[in-house]
Amino acid sequence: MLRLYDFLPSGNGYKVRLLLSQLGIPFERVELNILKGETRTPEFLSKNPNGRIPLLETQPGQFLAESNAILFYLSEGSQFLPNDHFLRSKVLQWLFFEQYSHEPYIATSRFWISILGKSAEYRDALEQKRELGYAALTVMEKHLGSHTFFVDERYTIADIALFAYTHVAHEGGFNLTEFPAINTWLERVKLQPLHIGMT
Amino acid sequence: MLRLYDFLPSGNGYKVRLLLSQLGIPFERVELNILKGETRTPEFLSKNPNGRIPLLETQPGQFLAESNAILFYLSEGSQFLPNDHFLRSKVLQWLFFEQYSHEPYIATSRFWISILGKSAEYRDALEQKRELGYAALTVMEKHLGSHTFFVDERYTIADIALFAYTHVAHEGGFNLTEFPAINTWLERVKLQPLHIGMT
Repeated sequence: MLRLYDFLPSGNGYKVRLLLSQLGIPFERVELNILKGETRTPEFLSKNPNGRIPLLETQPGQFLAESNAILFYLSEGSQFLPNDHFLRSKVLQWLFFEQYSHEPYIATSRFWISILGKSAEYRDALEQKRELGYAALTVMEKHLGSHTFFVDERYTIADIALFAYTHVAHEGGFNLTEFPAINTWLERVKLQPLHIGMT
Repeated sequence: MLRLYDFLPSGNGYKVRLLLSQLGIPFERVELNILKGETRTPEFLSKNPNGRIPLLETQPGQFLAESNAILFYLSEGSQFLPNDHFLRSKVLQWLFFEQYSHEPYIATSRFWISILGKSAEYRDALEQKRELGYAALTVMEKHLGSHTFFVDERYTIADIALFAYTHVAHEGGFNLTEFPAINTWLERVKLQPLHIGMT
């Protein structure tokens, strides 16, 4: 059985849980508290030298890290990943957008404010994160203004990856009121069969 | 013919140029100076709403953004991307590692110091970047201590992606003296057929 090393409040972990639910694949979840350094122990570092969750143990002793690489691995052959190579590359385009232009601002703001509870300590850094987070949301809003989903007008792992932290962006201090297309898309994603919430 | 929107000092652009060279695929290069806002014009934003290079025009009016998605797109069916799905996913794991844990620290430090020439203005931010950049290099060093390349003991797009900014890490103030396995790997990458330099 697949084993997922995970941390429940993590949006990166949630991406994988959501896809596994929608694929109907059973898995064992191992909770590690990143706030207590449980991903920086010698034992865990022997599994993932980068010391991060989520980490998927695909078979005993074989590990795959990086949430979006895990989504790609699990969705092969399913409705959630196009077969066409250009469309598949477009899915990856949005996955890289998510990790480079979205997650570092929207997820990190949420982590500081709602998980660590340290918005005062991080006030200046949050200001910088805010501008770049809104820039990412603006790119999404523009795209979703004329598309139902991110790629090929159907629900793929690109939507799963971008949904994870966008639907809790308010926990990072982002106001989505001015993003109507994003709000419509969030509701569309929640209506997909076998959708599950974050925790 | 493929058209690449590019900026010569960009390591992300260089990744694509290097792969195209090694694939022997001719392409037209369109230079845009990001320092002069040439990727933020309405015309360019209509091609890539995220306003970044590299951007590949795969056929007239069809665009693919994100350097590592472009590497994936171009390497399909070549020796630079494994066919095996797990190995392919491991390549993606390293590509996401590069964009999330490596590029934001090592490439951004280089940008501030060697391209903008503003190391004094960014002194505090560079200090933070330094620690996380060395953490990424340490993960690479550990892996390369027992592997010739990042995946499957052969040269893939994972090596191309990680080579791009690692081989100019000194331009961002990083000292690679303590990373012997990385240095050996850098030389190994440079010896690959049809290798080209950055500029």
